[in-house]
Amino acid sequence: MNAPQLMPNQVARPVPAELLSQLRAHFGERCSTALAVREQHGRDESPFDVLPPEAVLFCESTSDVALAVRLAAAHRVPVIAYGAGSSLEGHLLAVQGGISLDLSRMNQVLRVHAEDLTATVQPGVLRSQLNHEIKDQGLFFPIDPGADASIGGMSATRASGTNAVRYGTMRENVLALEVVTASGEVIRTGTRARKSSAGYDLTRLMVGSEGTLGIITEVTLKLHPLPECVAAAICFFEDVGAAVNTTIQLIQLGVPIARCELLDTHAVRAVNHNDHLGLKEAPMLLMEFHGSDASVKEQAATVQELARDWGGQDFQWATTPEERTRLWTARHHAYLSALQMKPGCRAVTTDTCVPISRLAEMVTSALAEAEAAGLPHFVVGHVGDGNFHIAYLIDPALPAERELAEDLNRRVVERAIAAQGTCTGEHGIGLHKQGFLIDETGEGAVAMMRAVKQALDPHNILNPGKIFQM
Amino acid sequence: MNAPQLMPNQVARPVPAELLSQLRAHFGERCSTALAVREQHGRDESPFDVLPPEAVLFCESTSDVALAVRLAAAHRVPVIAYGAGSSLEGHLLAVQGGISLDLSRMNQVLRVHAEDLTATVQPGVLRSQLNHEIKDQGLFFPIDPGADASIGGMSATRASGTNAVRYGTMRENVLALEVVTASGEVIRTGTRARKSSAGYDLTRLMVGSEGTLGIITEVTLKLHPLPECVAAAICFFEDVGAAVNTTIQLIQLGVPIARCELLDTHAVRAVNHNDHLGLKEAPMLLMEFHGSDASVKEQAATVQELARDWGGQDFQWATTPEERTRLWTARHHAYLSALQMKPGCRAVTTDTCVPISRLAEMVTSALAEAEAAGLPHFVVGHVGDGNFHIAYLIDPALPAERELAEDLNRRVVERAIAAQGTCTGEHGIGLHKQGFLIDETGEGAVAMMRAVKQALDPHNILNPGKIFQM
Repeated sequence: MNAPQLMPNQVARPVPAELLSQLRAHFGERCSTALAVREQHGRDESPFDVLPPEAVLFCESTSDVALAVRLAAAHRVPVIAYGAGSSLEGHLLAVQGGISLDLSRMNQVLRVHAEDLTATVQPGVLRSQLNHEIKDQGLFFPIDPGADASIGGMSATRASGTNAVRYGTMRENVLALEVVTASGEVIRTGTRARKSSAGYDLTRLMVGSEGTLGIITEVTLKLHPLPECVAAAICFFEDVGAAVNTTIQLIQLGVPIARCELLDTHAVRAVNHNDHLGLKEAPMLLMEFHGSDASVKEQAATVQELARDWGGQDFQWATTPEERTRLWTARHHAYLSALQMKPGCRAVTTDTCVPISRLAEMVTSALAEAEAAGLPHFVVGHVGDGNFHIAYLIDPALPAERELAEDLNRRVVERAIAAQGTCTGEHGIGLHKQGFLIDETGEGAVAMMRAVKQALDPHNILNPGKIFQM
Repeated sequence: MNAPQLMPNQVARPVPAELLSQLRAHFGERCSTALAVREQHGRDESPFDVLPPEAVLFCESTSDVALAVRLAAAHRVPVIAYGAGSSLEGHLLAVQGGISLDLSRMNQVLRVHAEDLTATVQPGVLRSQLNHEIKDQGLFFPIDPGADASIGGMSATRASGTNAVRYGTMRENVLALEVVTASGEVIRTGTRARKSSAGYDLTRLMVGSEGTLGIITEVTLKLHPLPECVAAAICFFEDVGAAVNTTIQLIQLGVPIARCELLDTHAVRAVNHNDHLGLKEAPMLLMEFHGSDASVKEQAATVQELARDWGGQDFQWATTPEERTRLWTARHHAYLSALQMKPGCRAVTTDTCVPISRLAEMVTSALAEAEAAGLPHFVVGHVGDGNFHIAYLIDPALPAERELAEDLNRRVVERAIAAQGTCTGEHGIGLHKQGFLIDETGEGAVAMMRAVKQALDPHNILNPGKIFQM
C-alpha cells in the first residue's frame, strides 16, 4: 500500500521575463503578479499549504485561453486552470510554478435548448448560477458538490454530489466540450446528441482529467425537467450501520430515490450549531424523492418501511420548499460547519466509494478507528452511491495530528480497495492520492494514463505534477 | 462534406511463417487457416465484401489473448478481436490482413454480485445468455442491440438498443474492464464502485474504441433489478412525423419511459411478414413502461394522452409476458425481416442521432428523399434517444444502387451534423464513416484520437484501418 503523498518533489519551472511581458502586452491589467492574487490562486480547500503561481491571468474568452497556452507552451511553462477554487485535493497548487488561468470571468450561460434538455455554458459558470438561470424554463442541473463549484472545475474533477444516485455524475451529464489543447489549439468533443459511437470518447477522457490534458472552455450539459413532485424526509437511527443498511436495501430494491445522504452524530451536531436546525443528535438519513405525486408517495412508503426494519425513528417530512432548502443548504454547509467546531483546524477528508453491499462495514470501521484514535472527526456520505467522507479535524501546527489523520485515511482507502472500490468517488486524485491510484488500478493502467498524457501534452505544461508523476 | 468511404486503400501486412508456427505451437487446432473459417471472420453484417484474416485463433483465456498479441506485436502483424460478428460498419474486415482473435469461447459469466447489482463476464458472453443467467436473481442487463451481440463487442462499439432511453448505453453500464494492451500486457480499468474520480477514465476510453486501443478480455457491468411491473403498448399514426412528435413531447416532459421504438410502414410490413403479427400497416410506436404498478399506469396515461393529441390510434396493450416477448422479438428481427423482403439484397443503414427536438424533421426528410429516389427502404428508430436508422435495400450486383444509397446516407448525415447531432448513435465508425467522423468533430479532435492511438498502439497492430487512418 502506497502512503498518501502530501507534496511530491517537484522542480519549479520559472516564468521567463519575456513570457511575462508577452502576457502583459495582451492581458494588461488582467495579468496579475500581486502576491495576494497569486496566493489566492495557489490554494484550494485542501489542507495543503499555499503554493502560488508566478502570475494569474483573468481570461475572458476561449481565445484568451488559447493565446495564454500558446505563449506558455513556447516557453514550456506550466498552466493551471482555476475555476472556483473549491477542490479538495491540491489540484490548484502550482507545484512546478507557472501561470494560473482564472476562468471565473468566463461565466456566461451561452445557450439553453430547453426543447432538447441541454445547455452550453462557459467554464466559470457556478452551479447555483446555472440552476438560477434555467429554473424559469422548468429545468434543473442536478450535480451539486458541496461547494458552489464552477461547471468547468466540476467537469475537470468528474464531480458528483447528492443527486448522483438518480441523475449520475459529471461523467453522465456532460455531452460535449470545447477544449484548448496543450499546443493552444481549440478542439470540440461530442455533440448535443444524447448518445454517440463516433470514435474515441474524448469527452469522457477530458472529464476527470484535472486540467492535465486540456483546458475546458465550454461545456454542454444534459438538463433535467424539474420533477412534478419533490418530497424530502429525515430519519434518525441508533447507529450509522442501521442508516447505511437501510440505504443498501433501498438501492438493491431499485427504489429510484433522488438523494440519500448520511450525516453522523458529529455532522448533525455541526449543522445544528451552524444552521440552528435543532435536529436530534443521532445518525441521520436525509432523503429526497422526485417524480409524480403517486410515485413519490410509493417511494416514501417503501423507504419508511425499510427504515423501520432497521430501527429508524422520528421520520419527518420537509413539506415546504423553504424547509427543504433549509435542510439541503445545511447539508451543503456540513463541511464548513464542522470545520467551525474546532477553530483554526483543517480537515483531511477521505472519499472512498465501494460496491453498495460493502458500505456499512466501511463506515462503521472508519468511525471505530477514528474514535479509538481520539481525533475529532465527522462523517457525511452520498450513501446511495456507496460513497462517504470521513473528515479528520487536525491542527495544522501539529504534524503528529496530520500523520495520524493520514494513517487513518490510508486504512480507510486500503479497505475500500480490498472491497473492489475506489479511493476517490468524486474529489479526484490531485496531489494527495497518487499512491492510492497505483494501489487501486495498478502500475499498468497508470502507465497507460501516462502514455496518454505524454501524447497530448508532450512538454507536460498542463497542470503538471497532478494525478501521477511523469 | 466528406463522402462515405467504402474501402480505404490499405496495405496488407502478411503473417510470416515463423509467427504462424509459433501460434500453431501454442494454439494447436485452435489456430485455423481454413478458408471457410477465415471468410467467416472477415465479414460482418455490413454490406462490405469479405476481407478474411490470414488466420483465426480461438482464444479460451486472457492469457491466450495476451500471448497472441505479444507474438503478433513482435512481428508487427494486425490482430482483430471477433465476438459475435454482428457489427454493421465493417469493423471485422481484415483490411491490412493479420489474425482474427475469436473470443466466442470466452463465454463465462464469471461473477454475479446481485447484492451490488454488478456482474463480471468474459467478452464472448452473449447478451441473451447474460440475461438468462441472471433472471433468477431478479436482475437484468438492459442493453440490447438488435443482434444477439457479445458483451465484448457491445463494449467495443459503445452499443445501445431499445432500453437506452431509460438505462443508458454501454457508456453508462460498463463499470470496469480487463484489457490486453498492444504490447500484450494485461491491465485493469475501473472498479466495482458506481462512480469514481480516480484518474483518466480509461474504461470510457476503451468503450467505443472498436478494438483499436486494446482487446477487452473481461467486462464488469451494472445490472438492474427487474422492474416490479412492465407494460408494453403499440400505437399507430397517420405519418411518422406524428409518431416522432409524440416521442419528442414525452421526452421533454421527462416521462421515464423504458423503451420507445418507431417502425415505419415498411418495417411494420416486414415484421408482419416474418413474424405473422397481423399489425396494422402504418407508422407505429412500440413502447414499454417499467416501474411500480402506479408509476406504469401514470406513464401510460400520459403517453396515451400525448399520442391522441398527435392523432395516435388503436392504442393496444400487450398484457401478457408472451405477447410482449413476441413484439420485442419482432422488433429485434426487424432488420433481418426487412432484408428478406428483397431476396439477395444487402442494406446500407444510417445511424444518426440528434437533439430530440430535431428528430421529426430528420426522419421525415430522410423518408421523403428515399421515396423520391425509388430505392426500397425502411425506418426503425430508438426515437426516445433521438436515434433512427433508415436502411436502403440494394442489389449488391448493381453499383449504381449502392452509390444512390450512399448518396442518400450522406444527406441524412449532413443534416444530422448540421443539427448538432452525430453520424452514429450506436453502430460505430468502422470503415464506413471515417469521413463523417471528421465532418462531425473536426480535424483537431480526430488528430487527438490519432495521438492517443499512436501512444497506446505505436505499431498500429490493433484493428488497424478502423475509425480513422493513421
